[in-house]
Amino acid sequence: MARGRTDTVLTTTFDGESFTRGPDALIVEEPLSIHLDEQLVATTMRTPGHDFELAAGFCFTEGLLGDVEVVGCRYCGTGSAVDTEFNVVSVSTDGLAAIPTARLGVMSSSCGLCGSTSIDELAARLAPLSGTSSIGFDIMTSMPDLVRSEQDLFDMTGAVHAAAAFTEAGKVLLVREDVGRHNAVDKVVGRLLLDHQLPANNLGLYVSGRASFEIVQKAWAAGFCALVAVSAPTSLAVATARRANLVLAGFVRSGRMNIYSPERISESVR
Amino acid sequence: MARGRTDTVLTTTFDGESFTRGPDALIVEEPLSIHLDEQLVATTMRTPGHDFELAAGFCFTEGLLGDVEVVGCRYCGTGSAVDTEFNVVSVSTDGLAAIPTARLGVMSSSCGLCGSTSIDELAARLAPLSGTSSIGFDIMTSMPDLVRSEQDLFDMTGAVHAAAAFTEAGKVLLVREDVGRHNAVDKVVGRLLLDHQLPANNLGLYVSGRASFEIVQKAWAAGFCALVAVSAPTSLAVATARRANLVLAGFVRSGRMNIYSPERISESVR
Repeated sequence: MARGRTDTVLTTTFDGESFTRGPDALIVEEPLSIHLDEQLVATTMRTPGHDFELAAGFCFTEGLLGDVEVVGCRYCGTGSAVDTEFNVVSVSTDGLAAIPTARLGVMSSSCGLCGSTSIDELAARLAPLSGTSSIGFDIMTSMPDLVRSEQDLFDMTGAVHAAAAFTEAGKVLLVREDVGRHNAVDKVVGRLLLDHQLPANNLGLYVSGRASFEIVQKAWAAGFCALVAVSAPTSLAVATARRANLVLAGFVRSGRMNIYSPERISESVR
Repeated sequence: MARGRTDTVLTTTFDGESFTRGPDALIVEEPLSIHLDEQLVATTMRTPGHDFELAAGFCFTEGLLGDVEVVGCRYCGTGSAVDTEFNVVSVSTDGLAAIPTARLGVMSSSCGLCGSTSIDELAARLAPLSGTSSIGFDIMTSMPDLVRSEQDLFDMTGAVHAAAAFTEAGKVLLVREDVGRHNAVDKVVGRLLLDHQLPANNLGLYVSGRASFEIVQKAWAAGFCALVAVSAPTSLAVATARRANLVLAGFVRSGRMNIYSPERISESVR
């Protein structure tokens, strides 16, 4: 049984003078524990649905899979209550993935902790992208309207993030929505991974919000050639995208956008 | 030396036809490692500034302090480079705080993992609030405009979260901005903690975005009587606020808002 992704509660609306009462649809937020070969690697608050994609995508974009393949995903709740049965997912590589070190341990060195160190760590495990994108800038500016029409959960709740993969011809391949920005991206990447469509060299990644360091990290890991964000990137996101040779566009609205990476637009990226 | 909170990069703007090049201010995102009595407890991506507030607030809202007092905060980078000196903060309780268990360990039980379990865990350590708020609904609807005028980093970058504490008279006490929603809240709570102003029984907490489970958790921990969010709450946020007896308002815009908690509006909360 799939978990509900929206929930309706009775709500009081105040218009400045009077109160009215009626139903309001909310986006569902529930924890998901992600296991890799039976080892707990993360617990995230997410919107239920596409949980295998989220779990597999998370393991991939966080670098936990290395070069090994996902051979299966399954729910592994205790089944003791309907509520808990679908909140634990195990991703299997038949034990081939390296046992993940605790994230806290990895970050415990106070020596050299800074944004550029974070970029260096990524560069140590991810090859730079080719730096050439075949996606036209007009295609990028068309994405908000195209994806918006498929944001079903946003229509119902008014507040949920979306991520989408799109082709150089401007076709939206898949859209995923989640209460968490990172989760929406991991679901898109996870779907492509499970379909053996990675690296996503000829695809662009669209996100309905801002582009932070972690979003750029995930786009880079999946090999997208462009990342298009409706809102602003952070300073570290721009520095990371430039290091990755990832085309990064932000503030994509009303047919306009800012291009933050590459540093200089040349014919090769138009 | 305080770290910069915005950074300017040369950006190319595409208006659908032509490209122009100019400076663009971005919000800075840098890692901060938080230590509690020399033990690493978290690393978060944050906007530099008010780091002691963030570190102390985080330890408090995550329940790591228990009943003990913060006796000091200090930067403890190696000093080997300017970049890294301000990215590690140690919060001291003179060793009185319990040694935190790893979060992964805490969440490792697959038995009963679900939203209501998360609420139960909070309820085990946090007393319910009194359930009476002295903050008028007209005060709540006035907050977006009042706080907006103090969102300096938003003015510069167009994309950064804000949190604010406000009084029942509608006075904005303090505003904090951060690339992370949770960080902005932790900075507000941390300031009140360091000023010995907690619990914040007579204050409201305003957030410029959505209200998730974690935001409600932090508001509950700090003892605010009301949480006012510009955007939507999640299903779990509403359930948690009702359990906490926390007044929760969302979609606060143009003098209107939705009241999600308490479940029924009575004279006692007007």
